[in-house]
Amino acid sequence: MKYKHILVALDLSDESKTLIDRAVFLANLLDAEVSFSHIDVSHGDLSMGLLDLNLSQNQQLLDGETMSTHRVFMEYAQCPVKHFIIGSGDLSEQLRDTVLEYKVDLVICGHHQDFWSKIISSSRQVIHSSPADILVVPIET
Amino acid sequence: MKYKHILVALDLSDESKTLIDRAVFLANLLDAEVSFSHIDVSHGDLSMGLLDLNLSQNQQLLDGETMSTHRVFMEYAQCPVKHFIIGSGDLSEQLRDTVLEYKVDLVICGHHQDFWSKIISSSRQVIHSSPADILVVPIET
Repeated sequence: MKYKHILVALDLSDESKTLIDRAVFLANLLDAEVSFSHIDVSHGDLSMGLLDLNLSQNQQLLDGETMSTHRVFMEYAQCPVKHFIIGSGDLSEQLRDTVLEYKVDLVICGHHQDFWSKIISSSRQVIHSSPADILVVPIET
Repeated sequence: MKYKHILVALDLSDESKTLIDRAVFLANLLDAEVSFSHIDVSHGDLSMGLLDLNLSQNQQLLDGETMSTHRVFMEYAQCPVKHFIIGSGDLSEQLRDTVLEYKVDLVICGHHQDFWSKIISSSRQVIHSSPADILVVPIET
């Protein structure tokens, strides 16, 4: 299985950098493309659809602070980031749509092994919805 | 993250071969070792501990039919299989013990995307217990 397009599901915390490290390592090894995704689940069911922040017309939709937060992760990667997909609403739906629309074949997401995340684990939602392989990376909390 | 020891969590169904394909591909790429694991969850809490089938003294503990089922998967791999760990009882506990005892840094497991597995998903148990990265591969059902 030679992955061609790796999507990193970021929550924009510092731990997201661990996921980027995995993606960059595998992408270099496999000559794959890397994209980022951040789904803002705090808006619940309010979905604005998927936007690619790498398209200049979409950058105007975000305030300066949000854009600079996203840029920190792009710069950290030190590799080309093909798409930076943002969305809001249901994580599993948005992620499945991203995988299909952008032809992703590997998703990398984090998994917090603390008590609360056993109850509201987003990695579980992701796994149930993704038609692509998923690499789950344990995040120390 | 250069994985050194990849463990494939087999359920001994034909779909397990998809997982072996992933493992062999990544192992060749990373010069990693491959081991197999089969935890028989049908015995519930009855745990016999972990046995390595590659040790000849353990092979005598299994009947001929069970051994030949396991051999089919070893032969399919067409690469050296360092350990074939078998156990019974609680999947998540046995898997966590295997990861720690055999210094596994990547577990590959399947995920059935049908209705029933949403209820009793073993991949979920595996994720909550593994200190290693986990590659979850969707299995069509």
